Amino acid sequence: MSNKNNVTEAYKGWLTYKKITGANWLNENNKWLRTIVVKDHSEVMKSAKNELVNAICEMTDEEPTLANAVESSYQILLTTSKDNNVESLDELNEDGYVIQTIHSNDRSYISLTGKTDKGVLYASFHFLRLIQTRTNLDNLNIKENPANQYRMINQWDNMDGSIERGYAGESIFFENNKFTTNLERIKDYARLLSSVGINAISINNVNVHAVETKLITDEFLPDVAKVAEIFRNYAIKTFLSINYASPMQLGDLKTADPLNEDVRQWWKEKAKDVYRVIPDFGGFVVKADSEHRPGPFTYDRNHADGSNMLAEALEPFGGVVIWRCFVYNCMQDWRDRKTDRARAAYDHFKPLDGQFHDNVILQIKNGPMDFQVREANSPLFGALTETNQILEFQVTQEYTGQQRHLCYLIPQWKEILEFDTFAKGQGTPIKRIVDGSTFENKLSGIAAVSNIGNDNNWTGHQLAQANLYGYGRLIWNPDLSTEEITGEWVRATFGNDPEVVEQITTMLHDSWPIYENYTSPLGVGWMVNPNHHYGPNVDGYEYSVWGTYHFADWQGIGVDRTVKSGTGYTAQYFKENADMYESLDSCPDELLLFFHHVPYTHKLKSGVTVIQHIYNTHFEGVEQAIGLNERWSKLKGKIDEERYDNVANRLEVQIENAKQWRDIINTYFFRKSGINDEKNRTIY
Amino acid sequence: MSNKNNVTEAYKGWLTYKKITGANWLNENNKWLRTIVVKDHSEVMKSAKNELVNAICEMTDEEPTLANAVESSYQILLTTSKDNNVESLDELNEDGYVIQTIHSNDRSYISLTGKTDKGVLYASFHFLRLIQTRTNLDNLNIKENPANQYRMINQWDNMDGSIERGYAGESIFFENNKFTTNLERIKDYARLLSSVGINAISINNVNVHAVETKLITDEFLPDVAKVAEIFRNYAIKTFLSINYASPMQLGDLKTADPLNEDVRQWWKEKAKDVYRVIPDFGGFVVKADSEHRPGPFTYDRNHADGSNMLAEALEPFGGVVIWRCFVYNCMQDWRDRKTDRARAAYDHFKPLDGQFHDNVILQIKNGPMDFQVREANSPLFGALTETNQILEFQVTQEYTGQQRHLCYLIPQWKEILEFDTFAKGQGTPIKRIVDGSTFENKLSGIAAVSNIGNDNNWTGHQLAQANLYGYGRLIWNPDLSTEEITGEWVRATFGNDPEVVEQITTMLHDSWPIYENYTSPLGVGWMVNPNHHYGPNVDGYEYSVWGTYHFADWQGIGVDRTVKSGTGYTAQYFKENADMYESLDSCPDELLLFFHHVPYTHKLKSGVTVIQHIYNTHFEGVEQAIGLNERWSKLKGKIDEERYDNVANRLEVQIENAKQWRDIINTYFFRKSGINDEKNRTIY
Repeated sequence: MSNKNNVTEAYKGWLTYKKITGANWLNENNKWLRTIVVKDHSEVMKSAKNELVNAICEMTDEEPTLANAVESSYQILLTTSKDNNVESLDELNEDGYVIQTIHSNDRSYISLTGKTDKGVLYASFHFLRLIQTRTNLDNLNIKENPANQYRMINQWDNMDGSIERGYAGESIFFENNKFTTNLERIKDYARLLSSVGINAISINNVNVHAVETKLITDEFLPDVAKVAEIFRNYAIKTFLSINYASPMQLGDLKTADPLNEDVRQWWKEKAKDVYRVIPDFGGFVVKADSEHRPGPFTYDRNHADGSNMLAEALEPFGGVVIWRCFVYNCMQDWRDRKTDRARAAYDHFKPLDGQFHDNVILQIKNGPMDFQVREANSPLFGALTETNQILEFQVTQEYTGQQRHLCYLIPQWKEILEFDTFAKGQGTPIKRIVDGSTFENKLSGIAAVSNIGNDNNWTGHQLAQANLYGYGRLIWNPDLSTEEITGEWVRATFGNDPEVVEQITTMLHDSWPIYENYTSPLGVGWMVNPNHHYGPNVDGYEYSVWGTYHFADWQGIGVDRTVKSGTGYTAQYFKENADMYESLDSCPDELLLFFHHVPYTHKLKSGVTVIQHIYNTHFEGVEQAIGLNERWSKLKGKIDEERYDNVANRLEVQIENAKQWRDIINTYFFRKSGINDEKNRTIY
Repeated sequence: MSNKNNVTEAYKGWLTYKKITGANWLNENNKWLRTIVVKDHSEVMKSAKNELVNAICEMTDEEPTLANAVESSYQILLTTSKDNNVESLDELNEDGYVIQTIHSNDRSYISLTGKTDKGVLYASFHFLRLIQTRTNLDNLNIKENPANQYRMINQWDNMDGSIERGYAGESIFFENNKFTTNLERIKDYARLLSSVGINAISINNVNVHAVETKLITDEFLPDVAKVAEIFRNYAIKTFLSINYASPMQLGDLKTADPLNEDVRQWWKEKAKDVYRVIPDFGGFVVKADSEHRPGPFTYDRNHADGSNMLAEALEPFGGVVIWRCFVYNCMQDWRDRKTDRARAAYDHFKPLDGQFHDNVILQIKNGPMDFQVREANSPLFGALTETNQILEFQVTQEYTGQQRHLCYLIPQWKEILEFDTFAKGQGTPIKRIVDGSTFENKLSGIAAVSNIGNDNNWTGHQLAQANLYGYGRLIWNPDLSTEEITGEWVRATFGNDPEVVEQITTMLHDSWPIYENYTSPLGVGWMVNPNHHYGPNVDGYEYSVWGTYHFADWQGIGVDRTVKSGTGYTAQYFKENADMYESLDSCPDELLLFFHHVPYTHKLKSGVTVIQHIYNTHFEGVEQAIGLNERWSKLKGKIDEERYDNVANRLEVQIENAKQWRDIINTYFFRKSGINDEKNRTIY
């Protein structure tokens, strides 16, 4: 990786601050942008100031003057002090802020006020967004508190430079089993994350291999500290994924048993080591007893034993343990139709509710399987009433096109967050559980697997930047609509040309349903090539050990997860949802095959049969992918070449791959069912 | 790899010379073994002498005396000189020999006479085999000429130590991109090969990567020369696989076009370099225009242009070009049912017959696809009448259980060699084509991909040694029966205990049909996991680019390769075979699905339907695999632990994996056809 970053618009992403052209907006608002007054001088405040100065300079060609006090009219004030002119400061939480245009007797100014310097930083990015979207600044009155306490990104980066499920180049953190020397790029990543409110990051893969195990040793802690400093200046706490067997692999212990006194002592010493070097270290992310990773099961201990031991070690320093719930039998016998992987997280963790220390957070994937294009929501949300928890999304598009296909995930995440669990009766959506409000959790929030690498545009597919942006914005405020988020991102990234905004916005909004159309149908999931998970393979996981089956035969398809005749998974939901999914009549079609095994001739609510639906959606999906390409081609000349070509090339790939999906899925089901397409289209 | 070889019986293989116990044979024959007379003193003669001395010493506990002339009675004479007492010396070819017990007036001796020192070496190994099998030595009269001129082994070893399709550890030649320092092990490999008559070896993978491309440069040629010396002392010529793009990758040419004068000159200089260091170097093995390897197609030249250019460079030094015919479209669209990979080798090379220089040899795989458990024989055999050719077998068990399953391949190879091509009317078997006799080829023979690595027992599965042994013996003399070959190997390797001989012999003989039973049915092939090719995956290659399909749907299965309604492949055979395969009535059932697409309800000649045959053989195959294990367990205590446990452990793995095959294949076809097993056995 070169140390020279190629700072094009592709690289700048939504922090592209193009010179403002067209006189109107600037004429009216430029007065506000000429002087910045900074109270307090922490590193985070400096970041806020620098962001404002640099961005305003780029957009207006004038460098703002810095001042220490509000002296004349028309200034920007950055402060954490109480300003009696500003309303509702008392309602701010730790990261909240108020942006308000103050017109007092002798002066006018825009106050960016936070309860802490973090709030000021967030306010600054918000203020810049207002400029990017050409908002009039004369009468601002904005109060923002993030809904979620933890707003986290998980890097799945390995120290050899590879990224597990990474589709945008190599790691920006590591290469050749060392830390990168390109710290400037890490700073730019911190800027991108902070600008959308991310406040926590774990920098290494949850699958912790030999070298990465040593990240918590003197060999690498000084490097971790350097990275942590960069993130700290942007109000982001640094975490590390740890290897549960560290006491054996780093120490000379013969066990990693969480109840063994030597093991407990080892971790306590280890925590001291870490906090000596990084006093505000966030804590440990742990994938234990999952997909062959070591964990407490080895010693006949449960996950509460396992995580509480680490929690005790971190507690004196204010650290937390983020313990992943992705635990299931990954050596399942496909012949065993009683075991249901979807049940696993609930079955493992629900019985332990209330047994976790108060600095343990369970990290629960949005669905019970694994980030499919469509699956049910995890029944653990609402079921754990006395346990800190955060929800895990996947921004990296492992099962959603691997950033070669366009697949905008904000609509999917919105649906998930809005899903009513009925945990405390109607009106208990997942978003109100993971924000901690429903059960008054001490710690709560949302995490997600990052989609960035060292490709110049960060995300491989230029438009996949929208998923990272939207992730941050949505978890800051889950009440934002998809439209609001998309609108912000497109304007910040590509400017305000109405045709550009319109085309890209609608392309993004259409993309997830398009991808779903030509891939795995009706919620059944998988049907991908093993290991790398790209491209269609209907039986790819059918006879495997991974618990991921569709059970298609000559008559029908689907997984019976009902209580009546199946695995009983539906009973893990609260009654209203359990009843809805249990009944073939009320189960939503989009999840039909996730919950039921039905004949190909089963009629969907749309009136078409399952088999005809498969044919129809797969033919349509390809046409729609072709349509995306046509829509993009209209923007030629309106977007710089680097970004235009990137998307154009990937859309070509998407079309070809969508045809493979269409033909393989349709052929598979035609060869299996013998049922003709009613419209006699080509099936092989 | 340690430089200390662990010289157990597992390691010694069929060159295990156990002390002879039981007095009878030794009492009668020991007189012959006390003195060895060696005429001529080439390095090969020394090898012959050393083999005899060491083996006799081990078997009799007495070291034979060496003498320069036959002086008293009862001696062994090694000579290439004409000995008037020995019959039929004139009938010997280059590698032939006579073993004869001479009783003349004043003395008795056993003469091991070769036309060259190579013959003497082969005679010595033969003589030792006579002792291992307890043959009375008093009246020997044996004349042997190898049927095939080239008796070759291809190593698919990479310089990083890995072996493509290797199932017995890492390379014995290379590690860490260097040559090994354990030359002793290479010598022991030379002994094993020479003992069964192998006379040529290519030491690196036909897929020649970056480092291996440099084997023909000064960087590595001295190392190649050291290895070549070891093999030379055992009458084995050394070859290298080369990268067709070498003039570009090693030289500074912009092209590798075979008709470009600079390219031609480059190769001529390169040949000089190689022969300066290794004057008896064998030549180049070339995989060109195959599976993404570079070749003449890049420059719109054909394979005759491509190979003749290299042949001209090697010709002054007596070297040859071995040019593989494994050329096909490996980017096929599965939707295209007209293109047939099976046709490819014939379609590419038949039109070029007669255009190759006389030091070019085409290397043709036994079948038109790729070393499947059962496939048709290549129609190129018999079709090329004016081209040097050698047949290629695969000893390494890529598609036949990867040396975790027992699969003795001699019976398969026998069938292939005996197959009547009708090229010159009835009675033109493949063995008489590849030995050069049918078309009086200047150069001819057989090559095979090796199955050895640095596992202590060489072949991973102890009993897989039999495939390497049998390969050598069979190509020396294709008229040997499987029973003769097996008998020799078992006695040489495990001794003469009748129960041991009986059990192992029958296990070997049953093993190929057993493996076929539970894997891919009726000649259709594949149904394996992509890339590594281990374990069942019915659709693993069905929607791929590799041209390897079965076209199973709800009604039937198989590839229609007939002229009448299919790809026309059958027409590549001579009329008798073409007619046999074209007709559903006369096509042998074992190849039914290779040639025809039939309904599951099609009745085989046995009277059972195709679907019932699939069910039956798969249930039976597992039972038979269990039977193999039971039979082996009877030998516990009769075989040393290392070898016993090795086989016992692998048979356990075989059984488990056979069950996976059974259940996945049966379930796949049940789910697709909806037809019940007549015997109602468990299908999932």
